[in-house]
Amino acid sequence: MRIALAGIGKIARDQHIPHLAANKRFSVVAAVTGHTPPEGVPGFRTITEMMQAVPDVQAISICTPPRGRLALIEEALEHGLDVMIEKPPAATLSEAEDFVRLAREAGRVLFTTWHSREAAGVEPARAWLAEREIRRVEVNWKEDVRVWHPGQAWIWEPGIGVFDPGINALSVITQILPRPLLLQDAALRFPSNRPAPIAADLSFTDTAGVPVDVFFDFDQRGPQTWDVDVETDGGHLKLSMGASKMFVDGVEQDVGDEPEYARLYRRFADLLDRRESDVDLSPFRHVADAFLIGRRSEVGAFEE
Amino acid sequence: MRIALAGIGKIARDQHIPHLAANKRFSVVAAVTGHTPPEGVPGFRTITEMMQAVPDVQAISICTPPRGRLALIEEALEHGLDVMIEKPPAATLSEAEDFVRLAREAGRVLFTTWHSREAAGVEPARAWLAEREIRRVEVNWKEDVRVWHPGQAWIWEPGIGVFDPGINALSVITQILPRPLLLQDAALRFPSNRPAPIAADLSFTDTAGVPVDVFFDFDQRGPQTWDVDVETDGGHLKLSMGASKMFVDGVEQDVGDEPEYARLYRRFADLLDRRESDVDLSPFRHVADAFLIGRRSEVGAFEE
Repeated sequence: MRIALAGIGKIARDQHIPHLAANKRFSVVAAVTGHTPPEGVPGFRTITEMMQAVPDVQAISICTPPRGRLALIEEALEHGLDVMIEKPPAATLSEAEDFVRLAREAGRVLFTTWHSREAAGVEPARAWLAEREIRRVEVNWKEDVRVWHPGQAWIWEPGIGVFDPGINALSVITQILPRPLLLQDAALRFPSNRPAPIAADLSFTDTAGVPVDVFFDFDQRGPQTWDVDVETDGGHLKLSMGASKMFVDGVEQDVGDEPEYARLYRRFADLLDRRESDVDLSPFRHVADAFLIGRRSEVGAFEE
Repeated sequence: MRIALAGIGKIARDQHIPHLAANKRFSVVAAVTGHTPPEGVPGFRTITEMMQAVPDVQAISICTPPRGRLALIEEALEHGLDVMIEKPPAATLSEAEDFVRLAREAGRVLFTTWHSREAAGVEPARAWLAEREIRRVEVNWKEDVRVWHPGQAWIWEPGIGVFDPGINALSVITQILPRPLLLQDAALRFPSNRPAPIAADLSFTDTAGVPVDVFFDFDQRGPQTWDVDVETDGGHLKLSMGASKMFVDGVEQDVGDEPEYARLYRRFADLLDRRESDVDLSPFRHVADAFLIGRRSEVGAFEE
C-alpha cells in the first residue's frame, strides 16, 4: 500500500514514521509538509502537488494539528485517497461531521483513529468488564505538558489544552465500558494567560447510572499518571501507563506489549482490505460537552 | 391524535397549549408536570403514572428545560409514545445522540423541533436564496433576557445564556443557507456573576468560503432585533422579527402570517402520518463548537 504522510511534526517522527517503516503492508512514498520531509521521502506543499508528482499514492495518514483538517481531507478525497487521521479528528464537531459525510459520499475508507484504544490493555479490559457488573469508574490522567509538548503553540489553542491527553483517556473508557456515557458536570481550570484549560474534572454517569469520575491535569510534576480504575462485582480492574498495562486485584495480567501505532496501522490495513471505515466521534463529543456545560475558573499563569 | 404535554412552563402556556387547542388533529389528554396542569387536563408526576391512568396517550410533546431530557424521552419510548421536543434538544450532545439512537431502535417518531424554522419567512427565504449566489451573511439577534425569561434560573445554566435565543437564529440560517456552516472563531462574554454567556460573536464560513457573521446579545434594551441579512448577486434579502417577515431590496414580501407553533404541530401531524422522524442536531452542534473554540471574556455583573 503506497501511503503518504501529511504533517511531519513530533507525532509523525516519534510514532508514524517508525511504525510505518516496520509494517510490511505500507510503503511511505511521499509527504505533505511545510517542514522537512522524512529522510528519503519526497516532500510537497499540497496534496494536489503531491498527486501530480507521485500519482500512485493510494492512502494518506494525516498528522497535522486539528485546525484545517476539513480542507486537507476534502482535497485527499478529491484525489481518490483513503484517509487515516490522528486524534483529535478536527477543531470543531461540525467540521468532523462534514468530512465524515464527504468520505461516505466519496466511498473512501476513513479511519478516525484513537491511538490509546490500541494500547495493549484495552481489548483485554473490555472483554473482562463485559462479564462483570461495574460499580464505579475513576480516571486519573495527569502529565506535564512541558515534557510532552515542548514549545507546541497549538496545544493551547481554544478547545485543546489538557483535553489533548484527556481525549485519549476518553477514547479508552468509551471503548472498554459497556454503555454510553453522559456528562453530568464539569469543572475546567484555565491558566490566567492561556485560552485553554490546564486541568479538568468531569463527572459522568453511564446510561445505567454508574458513576464515572475523570480527573485531568496538564501540570503534573514528578511521576506521570495515566490510570483507569474500575470497581466491579468481580474485583478491581486497573489500567495503567496509558492502558498498556492491566491489573486485576493488583496482579498484573499478560496483555502483550504490541505498541499502539503498530496496532493502529495493522487496523488501517485491515480496514483497507475490507473497504470499511471506522468512525467514532464520541470522545470528541464528550470534550465538546465538557466545554459546553463546564464551569470555568481561573488559576495561576502557565509558565513553560 | 391523543397527545400529552410534559413541562407546563411559560413556553407550554404561551405557545403549545393554545396552538394544540386550535389544531383539529390533536387532543391534549394529559400533562406531566410538577406544577399546575392546564385547565381541564389531568396532571401526573411521571410518564409512567400518566400511562397507568390514561393508557391511550399516543404521543408526547416535551417542553421541559433541557436538563433531564434523556430520562424523559427514554420513559416515553418505553411506553411506545411518539415524541416531539422543544429546543434545545438536550443539555449535552452525547445525551441527544443517545435518545436519537433510542428512538430509532424503538421505531418511534422523534421530532427535534426548531420553532424558528417554522417562521413564515424561512421557507420563502430558502427558496429565494437557492437560485442566487450568496456573498455574505450577517445575523443580529439581540433581546432583553429580563423581558423574555423573567426569573427563569435555568436560562443561566452553563451552556445556555444567550444561546437560548441564539440557537433559534442558528436553526434559521442552517435551514435557509444552501451549504453547511463551519465555525472559525467565537468570542463569548460572561457576566462576572453568571456561568453562561450574555453575548457572543461567531464567525462562520460556509463550505464554499462565504462569510457568515453572527452577533448575539441578551442585554438589549429598547428595540429588540432578530434579523438575518443576506447579500447575494441578485439583491439583498432580509429576514426580520425572528424570520416572520421577509424583505427583498427593502420591499416586504408576502409570506403569510401562520404562527410558528401552528406550523410546528402541523408538521408533527404530517410526520406521525408518514411515521417519519425529523432530527437535525446541527444548530446544537454549532453551539457546542462555540463553547469549544470560543475565547471567553468577563463583563459586568448581570442584574435582573
